[in-house]
Amino acid sequence: MKNDNNIPYKIYLSEDEMPRQWYNVRADMKNKPAPLLNPGTGAPLKAEELTPIFCEELVKQELDDNTAYFDIPEEILRYYKTYRPSPLVRAYLLEEALGTPAKIYYKFEGNNTSGSHKLNSALAQAYYAKQQGLKGVTTETGAGQWGTALSMACSFFGLDCKVYMVKVSYEQKPFRREVMRTYGASVTPSPSMETEVGRRILAEFPGTTGSLGCAISEAVEAATTHEGYRYVLGSVLNQVLLHQSVIGLEAKAALDKYGVKPDIIIGCAGGGSNLGGLISPFMGEKLRGEADYRIIAVEPASCPSFTRGKFAYDFCDTGKVCPLAKMYTLGSGFIPAPNHAGGLRYHGMSSILSQLYHDGYMEATSVVQTDVFEAAEQFARVEGILPAPESSHAIRAAIDEALKCKETGEEKTILFGLTGTGYFDMFAYEKFHNGEMSDYVPTDEELAASFATLPNIEG
Amino acid sequence: MKNDNNIPYKIYLSEDEMPRQWYNVRADMKNKPAPLLNPGTGAPLKAEELTPIFCEELVKQELDDNTAYFDIPEEILRYYKTYRPSPLVRAYLLEEALGTPAKIYYKFEGNNTSGSHKLNSALAQAYYAKQQGLKGVTTETGAGQWGTALSMACSFFGLDCKVYMVKVSYEQKPFRREVMRTYGASVTPSPSMETEVGRRILAEFPGTTGSLGCAISEAVEAATTHEGYRYVLGSVLNQVLLHQSVIGLEAKAALDKYGVKPDIIIGCAGGGSNLGGLISPFMGEKLRGEADYRIIAVEPASCPSFTRGKFAYDFCDTGKVCPLAKMYTLGSGFIPAPNHAGGLRYHGMSSILSQLYHDGYMEATSVVQTDVFEAAEQFARVEGILPAPESSHAIRAAIDEALKCKETGEEKTILFGLTGTGYFDMFAYEKFHNGEMSDYVPTDEELAASFATLPNIEG
Repeated sequence: MKNDNNIPYKIYLSEDEMPRQWYNVRADMKNKPAPLLNPGTGAPLKAEELTPIFCEELVKQELDDNTAYFDIPEEILRYYKTYRPSPLVRAYLLEEALGTPAKIYYKFEGNNTSGSHKLNSALAQAYYAKQQGLKGVTTETGAGQWGTALSMACSFFGLDCKVYMVKVSYEQKPFRREVMRTYGASVTPSPSMETEVGRRILAEFPGTTGSLGCAISEAVEAATTHEGYRYVLGSVLNQVLLHQSVIGLEAKAALDKYGVKPDIIIGCAGGGSNLGGLISPFMGEKLRGEADYRIIAVEPASCPSFTRGKFAYDFCDTGKVCPLAKMYTLGSGFIPAPNHAGGLRYHGMSSILSQLYHDGYMEATSVVQTDVFEAAEQFARVEGILPAPESSHAIRAAIDEALKCKETGEEKTILFGLTGTGYFDMFAYEKFHNGEMSDYVPTDEELAASFATLPNIEG
Repeated sequence: MKNDNNIPYKIYLSEDEMPRQWYNVRADMKNKPAPLLNPGTGAPLKAEELTPIFCEELVKQELDDNTAYFDIPEEILRYYKTYRPSPLVRAYLLEEALGTPAKIYYKFEGNNTSGSHKLNSALAQAYYAKQQGLKGVTTETGAGQWGTALSMACSFFGLDCKVYMVKVSYEQKPFRREVMRTYGASVTPSPSMETEVGRRILAEFPGTTGSLGCAISEAVEAATTHEGYRYVLGSVLNQVLLHQSVIGLEAKAALDKYGVKPDIIIGCAGGGSNLGGLISPFMGEKLRGEADYRIIAVEPASCPSFTRGKFAYDFCDTGKVCPLAKMYTLGSGFIPAPNHAGGLRYHGMSSILSQLYHDGYMEATSVVQTDVFEAAEQFARVEGILPAPESSHAIRAAIDEALKCKETGEEKTILFGLTGTGYFDMFAYEKFHNGEMSDYVPTDEELAASFATLPNIEG
């Protein structure tokens, strides 16, 4: 039975060892992410243009490319302690099952009711909304993890919470809705008839199963047309990556404690919240020239923004009411085929990660769905944890890298992000078990049609 | 913000501090639990009569009333480390929400894929089955936690796993089935046409939604009619309480570390696996006269074996193929009304706990369903964790005791067992949210009819 240097199966930091500050990787980037643009004028957005949509403090965090560290308020730390520090797990059992000399670690963010890392930013965003004296917040959710996380955070801070849930997820995950209701949130399948933009999208695409971009449009409209509400978002934005840096900071502190330095860092990538958070302190060292790491983003082949997208200014939402962001994108009209299970269904990618990828600081790869679920099941059967489909993209890549080590005999150290659990994804697992899951990948023609929705803006 | 004596929100023991032995509370009982009887002869069962049903090592544990400690094999400890030590949580947030001077702690067993404490015994039972060279095991499951736990354990040790799932749970929890399939188990709704006893029960009660007692009969028949299989059970048995002692031993070690002594210990009670495990080391002290604790069993008013049952020899299963046990029981023909959600639906109660209750070492109380779900939701909204309906019985009682402290001003220390999460119970939560949940309690006439199924045996 493997057990290296007395490294336990699970490394838990103590509450005293928890990070007290978030790290802003933008401070160490030479090429800053391109600014958000006003969709009307095409000019960089100023704070006062953003505050009708977002909370004031969050706008400051969003626009600050230079401050390296932000203090985590005590009230947020307090709720972090209900589920953090999260464990860094040494995957002895997986290593043995694979027969690999690689050493595999994963940072497990699923031990909270939202089932994922999303709560890290939800708590921060709800806290600042409360501080500003708001009544409530609106948001969108895809797989439902973000919506659940926000419901929990709003319940803690006594805020109203209105969630627009991508229709296909709403139907495939009826129990997610009940979890959100348990925490007091209201949940609407998107597109809905409740908003102008929803009605417009339904008129144009009557059979649509929805998309994150469309749900975002509805949530933004709801926030800006109701007094005392603001919009909050669970991924893509700079502020979200800032809050999610707690994942990487904890992971690094735990590894440092045992003198372990990863060679490869792997994370799944949809909008980039988990990947950006996990890699941030490592990327900081890499940007400052203090260390080198191989960093790999893993995305679904059915929604391949890094690997097949364009690096361009695009709308963040289908309804085109949000600011424009420069990012790797498939076009705001892109909607993954209905076979696509789980999250990682956003058409774009965090501007920070897009810039870092563009500048060569990280790699990206895409994987097809049945390969992902095979890895998920293999992982579950040896490590016990039932992974979310999203997280399983990272598992797939980690297993593949570990198997390469088996061939070459290299004892590489692999760190990957296990963002959450799959308890609410059993519909997808069922399809996999019944052999009904397909590996559909968009054709070049489909992507070309989607790219045609890109605005013509130089950036 | 409350934070006593630097006691963290979550107390995690290190892997080095994990218990290396299970504790057998029978060793300290003056009045031992009554022996199992042969249903044919009415004589106490010998080991050789049990080994066709159970694994040999487990039979030894079952029948040993005198050995106080059993070593936990290294292979079991290893898998314990994938989810243990489990956190002992100080419920600062709940205390604050209640405005109580009470100090509330809970031992949280839900951070594993089975969603409950059941894995503690599943790993042990699967290990001994593997050691004996068996092909596989059969079992029943109600709410599905035990079946999931056993599926995981069998997957770890490479055993075949056949689960008979109470039909009402099978229908209300389709996703549980997929979790079990993910770990490679086969799942059959019970009663089924696969077994003699299932066919007999279906013929007699065509519309039955099933019961644990009936699923047990089917699983036992399947084990004894297939070469290389044995039956395993997730509750009630002495061996299960032995394995579950790890909960109490860890909880006590964590409390001792901070010099905390509970005044009241609360656990939900169905067959007694969690309650028996949680209280064991505390009960040991009480039995030896070294300390005193108030110990409370909380059961559903819809299945009230302690509070309205008889202390008598009874069949452990509806099909009457199993040994007879002396216990608090509602009669083996008892089936909870269909309104009853979740587990805690067994007609009887662990012989160990029954004897302790009979001898005055613990109290019992029953609670109605909507009160339980109210407590569950209140707890979720402040502590974050979404509790299982079963666990929420203990939450209800803990909140009630804390509110009594608020009235009297007493600073009592309350420890309760939070056995698991409710992710697969959203159907029940939905009924609660929609006001469709009832508090049906069996009438005296219904219980009298059920008591009529008791065998006429002095014990």
